[in-house]
Order: sequence, then C-alpha cells, then structure tokens
Amino acid sequence: MVRKILLQESDIPTHWYNVQADMPNPMLPPLHPGTKQPIGPEDLAPLFPMELIKQEVSQERWIEIPEEVRDVYKLWRPTPLFRAWNLEKMLDTPAKIYYKYEGVSPAGSHKPNTAVAQVYYNKAEGVKRLTTETGAGQWGSALSFACNQFGLDLEVFMVKISYHQKPYRKVMMNTWGATVIASPSDQTNAGRQILAESPDSPGSLGIAISEAVERAATNDDTKYSLGSVLNHVLTHQTVLGLEAVKQMEMAGDFPDIVVAPFGGGSNFAGISFPFLRFNLTEGKKVRCIAAEPASCPKLTKGEFRYDFGDTVGMTPLIPMYTLGHQFVPAPIHAGGLRYHGAGAIVSQLLKDQLIEAQALQQLECFEAGIKFAQAEGVIAAPEATHGIAVVIREALKAKEEGVPKTILFNLCGHGYFDMSAYADYFDGKLEDHHLSDEELHQYLNILDTPSVA
Amino acid sequence: MVRKILLQESDIPTHWYNVQADMPNPMLPPLHPGTKQPIGPEDLAPLFPMELIKQEVSQERWIEIPEEVRDVYKLWRPTPLFRAWNLEKMLDTPAKIYYKYEGVSPAGSHKPNTAVAQVYYNKAEGVKRLTTETGAGQWGSALSFACNQFGLDLEVFMVKISYHQKPYRKVMMNTWGATVIASPSDQTNAGRQILAESPDSPGSLGIAISEAVERAATNDDTKYSLGSVLNHVLTHQTVLGLEAVKQMEMAGDFPDIVVAPFGGGSNFAGISFPFLRFNLTEGKKVRCIAAEPASCPKLTKGEFRYDFGDTVGMTPLIPMYTLGHQFVPAPIHAGGLRYHGAGAIVSQLLKDQLIEAQALQQLECFEAGIKFAQAEGVIAAPEATHGIAVVIREALKAKEEGVPKTILFNLCGHGYFDMSAYADYFDGKLEDHHLSDEELHQYLNILDTPSVA
Repeated sequence: MVRKILLQESDIPTHWYNVQADMPNPMLPPLHPGTKQPIGPEDLAPLFPMELIKQEVSQERWIEIPEEVRDVYKLWRPTPLFRAWNLEKMLDTPAKIYYKYEGVSPAGSHKPNTAVAQVYYNKAEGVKRLTTETGAGQWGSALSFACNQFGLDLEVFMVKISYHQKPYRKVMMNTWGATVIASPSDQTNAGRQILAESPDSPGSLGIAISEAVERAATNDDTKYSLGSVLNHVLTHQTVLGLEAVKQMEMAGDFPDIVVAPFGGGSNFAGISFPFLRFNLTEGKKVRCIAAEPASCPKLTKGEFRYDFGDTVGMTPLIPMYTLGHQFVPAPIHAGGLRYHGAGAIVSQLLKDQLIEAQALQQLECFEAGIKFAQAEGVIAAPEATHGIAVVIREALKAKEEGVPKTILFNLCGHGYFDMSAYADYFDGKLEDHHLSDEELHQYLNILDTPSVA
Repeated sequence: MVRKILLQESDIPTHWYNVQADMPNPMLPPLHPGTKQPIGPEDLAPLFPMELIKQEVSQERWIEIPEEVRDVYKLWRPTPLFRAWNLEKMLDTPAKIYYKYEGVSPAGSHKPNTAVAQVYYNKAEGVKRLTTETGAGQWGSALSFACNQFGLDLEVFMVKISYHQKPYRKVMMNTWGATVIASPSDQTNAGRQILAESPDSPGSLGIAISEAVERAATNDDTKYSLGSVLNHVLTHQTVLGLEAVKQMEMAGDFPDIVVAPFGGGSNFAGISFPFLRFNLTEGKKVRCIAAEPASCPKLTKGEFRYDFGDTVGMTPLIPMYTLGHQFVPAPIHAGGLRYHGAGAIVSQLLKDQLIEAQALQQLECFEAGIKFAQAEGVIAAPEATHGIAVVIREALKAKEEGVPKTILFNLCGHGYFDMSAYADYFDGKLEDHHLSDEELHQYLNILDTPSVA
C-alpha cells in the first residue's frame, strides 16, 4: 500500500499558472471607489509593488517563479499528496480519495505560498516594511514568516478580540520578528477615529484593513499585502495545484472532482485552477467545487455585482459574488472563511458556470473533521473541514450510485491552533446558523455600488 | 541549493536496530522492587505483552518491523532530513548542520514511532485496552493516535495541573477517541489514597504512573504502555535514525556529531544508536551528545546505581543514572525532559564513555529555538530547543577552531502546543535554575536502593 506521492525539490514548479489566459470571458475591470471609472496601475502603486500590479492584470499563461522564491519554498515544498485509504475504507466507498497536504509549511497552511512571493517582489523594488491585517492569525503568521526570511519589517494589525483570545498566533508572529498591534489602535487616524467613537471596540477585519492600508498609503517605504481575493494571490497559490497535477499523474490517476474550502478564493484557486486548465484547453470535465460556510454563502446565495473589498469602502470596486461589504457573518470557528465576497476571477468563473459551490453548516464540518482525524491522523483546521465535508458527501454519493469517482481535495492547514474549536464541538457548544432571507439580503438591499447587468 | 533529502515509502526501514547486540558491556539486570532479585518475564507479564517483554532483553541486532506497523508509519514516514543552510549562514560557521524532522507526525513528535508498535503487539496478543500516563501530553497524544488506528481503547491519566492548564492536548486525545482522566482520580486505589490525604493535589507524573499501572495490573484485558526509558521503546525509535543514515549517505555526508534532547532516552536513542553502531562495529568516532536540562541533570550530575522508574517505588529497580526517584525538577517548560533517571541502555553507554552529555539552562535553549525559527522556519518544541542549543555550541566551536564539522540533530517535535512557553520567554518571565549541591544530592542521599559498585 502506497499512501503518499512524494516529489523532490527539483519538481517544484518553475512557473505559476495564470488562469486569466484561458478564461473564455474576460473579467470586468475594477473601478475607482470615488470616480467609479476603471482604475489603472498608478491607482494601486501606493499599496503594491509594480510587479504584483502587473501580475494582477497579466494575460500570460505562465509566470516565472523567481529562483529566490523557490529557494524559500524548499523549506517545506513540495508538499505530499496522500491517498486517503483509511477514509475510503471508513466510508466504504468505491471513490478514490486523494488529498494535498499544505499543513507542513512553517506557518501551518498554504498561505506562505503567496506570502513569500509578495515579500520577494516588495524587497526587489526597495520596500523596507509591509503592513497587513489578520483575524484569527493564519495570514499574519504566514507573512511574518516570509518577511523574516527576506529581512523586511512587518506590522500586523490584528483584530483586537482575536489578539486577546488567541495569543498563541501573536506569539508565533513575534517569534518571526513581526510587530503585532491590536486593532483598533491609536497608531492610525482610522484607529483613533474608531476608538474616539467606541473606546471598547473589539475591532473587525474591516477596521484592521483600514489601519494597515492607511499605514502603507502614508509611508513611502511601506507597502500593503493581502492574503487572498486578489488575482496575483490566486496565481501564486497554483504552485500547489501544479504539484498535485504531477503527483496525480505519478499515481496514474486524474480527478473527476476537485474540492477546496472557500474564503476569498486563494485556497480553492491553488488546487483547482491547474486542473480547470484541462477543462478550458483540452475539453476535460473536472468538477471544481468550492466549499463555503452556510453562514457566509456568497457563492451559493450572493449577488454578482460590483462591491468593495473592505467594510469601510476604501478599496477599488471589484466585480464579485457578494453578500454586501457590510455583511457580518455569524462567529463560526472557520475564521478564514468569514468574508463577504469572492475574488474577481472565481466570481467570473462561477458566473460562467465553469465551477461549482456548496454551502455547509459547521456541525457537518466538524463531524467530517473528526472522521478524517480518526482515519488519516491529521487534525484539520476548521476551514479545511469544509472541504472534507464535501468530499464525504461526494464519496457517499459515489457509493450510492456505484460509480468509482476520483476525488482530490486540498487539506489547506492543520488545526493545532484551533483545538478550542474542537473542544467547543465536543462540549456541545457549537450550533449551526440558518440565515433567514431577511438576514441574507439585509446588506445586499442597501448596496449602492454599480451593478454588472 | 538542495534543502532536504526525501525518501520514498519503500525506504522505510524493515527492521529496528537493537543496540544491545553490539554493546561491549552487558547491562545489569533489572531487580524486583520487593525481593531485589533479577526479574523474569513473568514479573512483567501483567503489564506488557510477551513480544515487548522479549524485545526488552533481546540480543538480536535487527528486529523486524511488522508490515501493519509500517503501513501506519506511512501516514507520515519517512520524515525529511534537512540541511540547515540558513542556520549555518546565520552562525557563519564552517560546520554543516543537518536535522531530521519528526514534527510531521500526526501527534507532532517522534513518539508515535513506538506508540504504533506497542499498540500493534498488544492487539496481536488480544489486549482490548491500554492505559498510560501523560504530563504535558506529547506521549498521551501519540498513544491516542496509535490506539485509534488499531481500534484499541485507551485511558490516559493526565497530571491534574496539566489537564487544567493545557486543555488542547486533552482535546487532541479526545479527537482520537481516548478517555482522559485528571490524576489523581477517584477511579483507582492509588488515586483515592492521594485524594484522601490531599484533596487539592495537583498531581504528578509519579502518581499518574501509579494509577495507570494499577489499572492495567487489575484488569485482565488491559495493559500498560510507556513512552520512553524502556529498552523496547528505544529500539522502536531507531526507525528514525536508520532513515537518517540512508539520507546522510544520499547527501554524500556522514556526521562527526549527533545530537538529541534527553528526557528518558527515546529521542536520543532514535537518532544516535544507528550511528553509534558504526563506532561499535566499524571503528568510527561519531560523538553522540545527549542534551539535558541543567535543572534535571541526571546524566551530567547524577549517580549510576539502581533506582525506581516512578516516584512511589512500584516499578522494577533499573540500573540507571539518577537524581533519586523522588527528585522534583524545577517547573521548566520542557516538560518531556523533567524525569529523574535515564534508561538502562543509555546509562550503561554513558558509564562506558561511549556517549556524551551536556546540560543546558532554559534561556540558552529558548534563544537557540528562536534563532532556529528565524533561520529555518520551524518553531521547535521546548524539548527540541535543548538539542538546537548544543548544535549551536558545537557549530560555534567549529568556527572558532576553523574545523568543518558535520553535525546532525533530531528535531523531535514542533512547538505549536507550547507557544505559551515562548510567550513567557518574550515576556521575560523565564529564569534559569541553578541547582545547589544540596538540592542536587537531597534525594540521592536518602536512596536505599542497591548500588552497582
């Protein structure tokens, strides 16, 4: 019995795959939040280095991974691809289940794949310091690790309630040399304004974004970095899916179904775009399924229109499936999936029916996560359990139908920093969240952003 | 630049290496705690399955790893061997530094290497349930994972203060289906006795051992399992060192120095015995260095004599370097190293000057751990930082002497469950512990166990 397909360092892809080159319909352009006119590179220059701005709109199919980035990737890449024999047996399914395991990175998830690339390009253009925001801490950890590798300073604005409730992620960022600031803080105008109005504000991702963006916009040697949603971020993540393509080939197999959890799109893009390419260019029919939380169902119940990326409305307007930028999801434990909108690429693909989405309640996800831990050993992050739950659904359907499907999913991170969520599950403290139509449309109804009709 | 040497599953060793076959001087026999006479297999039969009792005294050089054990190993083995290029550069040393990384196992350390084997042999002999004790939770987690894989029940007696202070390890054990009981408990005579005397007892490893052993001794279908010290445990861990031998060969290198943290000996044995074999049989001169905490310096300052494995004095008497079985180490964060004695094999090897030991204060260890995290990305368990600290000492000595040594160490586990220790370090709350001669000899002076002179 062979459980895993292992590549050597020389197999790390030399190029990222940019799905923009193969999309049948181009995306609508992002709009300036003030003028509502398409933005140009100069509008993004205060926040991002020029190379990343170019990648954002690039139509090149393959974008070369710099040697320096590949060298840092080697600290954990290539990652293993596992055949989940034990899970198949537990489910008594004819389906073959494979998973790509990204939890072996130092930060514990797929996030460093883009963090390392972004830091590299910033450094190459003379940037000395980055800022970012983080909620539960996955992205902040990944960027801390990456900045540390290249010797850049980093300020992480961490949502205040998480800062106090999840001190271990903060310590992890400190270990890699980052400064972590509880947001709202007194260090930015945005933060001071919030604190003046509500001194006890627990903070939010939207506020933290505002603080990080302000810091970058007002300091010449400082840029801003984002961990999902944007096109270049999604492109960087394809390194993991391209490895998986090679590994599936070595296994003598090809997936009928590819699954990943969905927050802003980077995880999903990473595993699915390199397989979607075979659909777009060679007529294959791989089903690519995004697994989103039922408490934040932008893909299955959102509207496709222009919307802001942040709560306050400072970012460019992006054509996206959204629940409205002021939508506040229930406090489920999969913090990385609690985002109101989907990135532009994924949104266009969904609109064109080239990908699918399923929404899941968290109890089903934790049950799936525990099944997986008992079968395969790995305790998955709550985000990752959404993917596992869809895999189990599809594997049981294959059993019902008697069809031996091949299913591949991205196990995007381990759950070692999320054991309190598992504890809450065992203690019966977790609930499902059923959104009423009213709750669902509350922030869509008040949107005054441009439609795309 | 190649950072890591990766093996395939087919390279997982087919046999463990039993150093007893090559030791120049045999060990003294363990003695019965009551009669003080050498014990036989029948004395151990209530606690362990016969195959493990046989391995305990086996003189066979190679012990076959059952296929079923290798199949479970494949969930994470073989583990990678890294060249620590970044650390070498940071230290500006001519030394070449390699490390074997065992943190990729589901439980996060090397402990499952023996847990899986022990559970397999118990199951093969019809055992339905195991008991064990755990302090900080590393061993309990590993055995929970292993029992879950083979469908055995497990009761873990967890030191009460850890049970309350480190709930996440408990949740991890629950996820793999184990029952975790705060010790002292009302479920055993030993526990009830302690509770009657001191109802608020925080517990200790010694008490937890007593409870677990009593449970096994008084139930026919239940056996006991230990995670270090014993000969068979050390033998099982050689699977990691044997992989490292092959990987060093692939790297075209051979270590001058092999380093590992030292608690009871399993980690150290795992990486060093397969290299020590070349000293014992081929005249090589690899220095094998055990890294122990200065607050619990049994190897560097203990006495070689018979002593008990537990605090209460229920276990057989073992010939060991010991600080006295009632020695209570300062509450350093490397919980896995806070044990009063060394296993019999390692003790004999040290007495025969075939291995070395160094003692380290915890501040030096945490500094080393942070250097390592910043260089190589991985945040190490506090136990593992003891090994890193010795590696840095030896690498700097190589620099001073201008000699290009090759150093290999075992990074036995990640520190994701130990971030509170790193937080304490950053907050300046950690101190070194300098033992006075009086403290050091306090429990040695009152020992009335047989000497070995």
